Amino acid sequence: MQNLRIAIGQINPTVGELDSNLARVSKACAEASEMGAEIVLFGELALSGYPIGDLALRRDFLESSEQALQQLTSDSTQWPNLNIVVGYPRLATESHANDWAIAHNSAAVIKNGTILGTYDKRHLPNYTVFDEWRNYVPGTESFEFEVGETRVAVMICEDIWRPQGPVYDLSGLADVCLVLNGSPFEKGKNELRRTIAERVSKSQKVAIVYANLVGGQDDLIFDGDSFALNKNASQIFQGSLFEEQTGSFEMTSPTVQAKLPIQLSRTWDALVQGVRDYVDKNSIPGIVLGLSGGIDSAVCAALAVDAIGAQRVKGIAMPSVYSSDSSMTDAETLADNLGISLEIAQIKDIHAQFQHDLDLSDLADENIQSRIRALILMADSNNSGRLLLSTGNKSEIAVGYSTIYGDSAGGYAPLKDVYKTEVYALANFRNTRSEVIPQNSISKPPSAELRPDQHDQQSLPDYEVLDAMLEVLIENHGSIDDLITAGYPADLAADVAKKLKMAEWKRAQGAIGPRISKVSFGRGRRLPIANGYL
Amino acid sequence: MQNLRIAIGQINPTVGELDSNLARVSKACAEASEMGAEIVLFGELALSGYPIGDLALRRDFLESSEQALQQLTSDSTQWPNLNIVVGYPRLATESHANDWAIAHNSAAVIKNGTILGTYDKRHLPNYTVFDEWRNYVPGTESFEFEVGETRVAVMICEDIWRPQGPVYDLSGLADVCLVLNGSPFEKGKNELRRTIAERVSKSQKVAIVYANLVGGQDDLIFDGDSFALNKNASQIFQGSLFEEQTGSFEMTSPTVQAKLPIQLSRTWDALVQGVRDYVDKNSIPGIVLGLSGGIDSAVCAALAVDAIGAQRVKGIAMPSVYSSDSSMTDAETLADNLGISLEIAQIKDIHAQFQHDLDLSDLADENIQSRIRALILMADSNNSGRLLLSTGNKSEIAVGYSTIYGDSAGGYAPLKDVYKTEVYALANFRNTRSEVIPQNSISKPPSAELRPDQHDQQSLPDYEVLDAMLEVLIENHGSIDDLITAGYPADLAADVAKKLKMAEWKRAQGAIGPRISKVSFGRGRRLPIANGYL
Repeated sequence: MQNLRIAIGQINPTVGELDSNLARVSKACAEASEMGAEIVLFGELALSGYPIGDLALRRDFLESSEQALQQLTSDSTQWPNLNIVVGYPRLATESHANDWAIAHNSAAVIKNGTILGTYDKRHLPNYTVFDEWRNYVPGTESFEFEVGETRVAVMICEDIWRPQGPVYDLSGLADVCLVLNGSPFEKGKNELRRTIAERVSKSQKVAIVYANLVGGQDDLIFDGDSFALNKNASQIFQGSLFEEQTGSFEMTSPTVQAKLPIQLSRTWDALVQGVRDYVDKNSIPGIVLGLSGGIDSAVCAALAVDAIGAQRVKGIAMPSVYSSDSSMTDAETLADNLGISLEIAQIKDIHAQFQHDLDLSDLADENIQSRIRALILMADSNNSGRLLLSTGNKSEIAVGYSTIYGDSAGGYAPLKDVYKTEVYALANFRNTRSEVIPQNSISKPPSAELRPDQHDQQSLPDYEVLDAMLEVLIENHGSIDDLITAGYPADLAADVAKKLKMAEWKRAQGAIGPRISKVSFGRGRRLPIANGYL
Repeated sequence: MQNLRIAIGQINPTVGELDSNLARVSKACAEASEMGAEIVLFGELALSGYPIGDLALRRDFLESSEQALQQLTSDSTQWPNLNIVVGYPRLATESHANDWAIAHNSAAVIKNGTILGTYDKRHLPNYTVFDEWRNYVPGTESFEFEVGETRVAVMICEDIWRPQGPVYDLSGLADVCLVLNGSPFEKGKNELRRTIAERVSKSQKVAIVYANLVGGQDDLIFDGDSFALNKNASQIFQGSLFEEQTGSFEMTSPTVQAKLPIQLSRTWDALVQGVRDYVDKNSIPGIVLGLSGGIDSAVCAALAVDAIGAQRVKGIAMPSVYSSDSSMTDAETLADNLGISLEIAQIKDIHAQFQHDLDLSDLADENIQSRIRALILMADSNNSGRLLLSTGNKSEIAVGYSTIYGDSAGGYAPLKDVYKTEVYALANFRNTRSEVIPQNSISKPPSAELRPDQHDQQSLPDYEVLDAMLEVLIENHGSIDDLITAGYPADLAADVAKKLKMAEWKRAQGAIGPRISKVSFGRGRRLPIANGYL
């Protein structure tokens, strides 16, 4: 295996776009062949995109995926020395115990016009955001092939994560383990993947080639960062983060130090990727969002500009009598800094008309202002086709500090999985690249500005406190008792837990947004609405 | 086993309400004891409510459930001859392959102060709306106990549905199989459950006691309809539908014919149960909804009144210049027939103010009318605490024929899983009980009334055609080709399939509603938003 050259095709597929995904795979095959590689490895379900959800239940989709694979097989005669290892959903012949799933999550090995064999994923993740036990029939067999004298095994993602996984039977049977991954970004995940791969490499004395997808797919962001370890668990190749790449290496390549950007940089780029691919994969012309002068909308605007460019982003400022003097200034400064267009819309007369026509309680009057703004923004979206971004953060979504059909309105919520304290950190981080977010938006006390002298901390504890408490309740599946044990006052603990529970019905209608944590709202955390347990 | 009397405690638990659930279980134990029963069987997870979703990941909740079980065990000395078979989530001692689930979905057998044993569900459904592979560790052992000379086996729901299930090892080992169920309502499910139970009874020569839950829990409706079959697969007991009941029978009881209401009656009562329990289990004081004079809002109003009574339901009519002459009359007649209060709110001046302040395309102008109505309704909800019902039906939700943050706004959508053609059938059915829905609402052509002379069929095929096509695409996971094979024109097939796909992002933000079909929108059908496959 001395001179064996292996390439990784780190591509950004779109779920269901079989033609364009096939084109990306073919392009990477040509590049790999040009590099002299004898193997090119792609990510999990690269041909169909990942995750495909209940598309896996559609027989016609599985047949179309099979056709794409056959096309690739025909085309592979162009690269006669190349072993192509590519993921695709494969129609299962065996029946599944649940009478529901009809597909395997598979990898095919293709060479010079022939399919050498297929491997079906054996460990199907069915936790956090994953539903693979719903959508796939687990495989039962291992698959190995040879390239010259090198014995090569194939695994798919979760297969190498499980301590009881088939990867722990490789010792002595394989020299290299190729792993196709659809491993979504999470804070700290890049390091964790390497720890897992090293554990396998060391215990089994195999080299590990870890190919990941790249790109946003709904709420998931695949960050790329493919890598390879030699038999001694030393990294010999590292792919780039957040971009497509065909990279290659020989198994005898020298060690390269794992080089990862700081966490805030990775998180920022992940969010940018999520916004960009949601817009582009849905063929949306641009983005519109409300600019309040506050930190959340400022960070969302900066993410939007980094994602699709200033000329496709429009801000609308909608001040009211309760807006602070600086709100308009901060919004204007932000728009200037980012180079986006800013429209000013007044809500005063519409608000007055609602107040004239309806009896409004204090709460109703606060909410109606937020909802008038949503109507103005959605009117722009209807006029132009632009995507409305919802600017709420994880902290306020957690405790229901938002107006449903008001500021929560929008098709995509970039900060949905970002706690308020992280929003501040990301704003400061983004300003180190170039100063775009006004310091005043960062430093002033946060406010919804829906009544005179309103501030978030009239209703909520300081965000440092709140976010730490929410982490116990959400990330750790913790309880009020856990909060009390951690030193929080009992009444505060109960109040935060209750707010979290009472907002479940609002979250059930929330826009999707990019996931950066293990327990994200939406499909990452599934709780009943009618629920008597605090 | 000649004189063995068995009771079924068909209760309506609320997820997480351990105290009140325990009280319901204890009451049924007392009633069963009074009847002379030696066994009382409850539904799946009766102590905790079902399904509990990710509450199963909270250790403190599992400990609290265990405490409730211990309390029941202490209390059971009051009924010393009674074997209590009750479902609860049990903290698992074994680790699970996925490093995530920590609970079993279990049944405990309690007698006179002692827990005789526990059984852990072995087959975990993870399809349609079920996520049990996510939340539970599967059991591996069977459990039997004896009552006098009768050998009794315990199974939980899915265990008896799988052809490879443990229930097919019972022959010769058990006389009676007790099955704890959390089997949600679906059209035709009542008959299907009997078919499954008969198959087991006949092949294994065992009696089957089938206890189901009753009551609405978010989108699921448990219809009760518990039953028992003797060793010859003849029905000897049938519980009531849609109400709590403690019923009992002897194993030698004579055959009773299965007696089920017609499907429309069951479906109506299921929807009523869903609305009632969503309101009551969330402690909501009442319901508000917009009355347009159309069929959907009329049926929703009738469901609301049947669920919680006329005095807790309020209608708001919000006519516009595009409303037909009869719309107000129909809304008023409906309100009169139902005995609910009807408020009239004008949208004209608010609409004019929006038109004055904003540039509105035709689409934006249509949507803004729908959204102004949502703001008026939500203002009432904010003022009063009433639940806003969203009145959209499955057909329009499927093809996106609705305004997000407009007519789709609301906390619960009673017709979410009801096709338009079924809405008409249900309206006619309800009128056979008492004539409440105006004939004109049933007979006039459906219209959103957002522009002059607008009718649904300007944008959509006839609902008979549309619904039949949607059934192929949704219920059968079918394709455009399947529609063409079924005889629909290719362009129409492509148009409907495209509309269905393009509305995915709206559905992702839709209110929950009661499920009556196998493939319901929401957690019953999980498709990506960014998706290139039609």
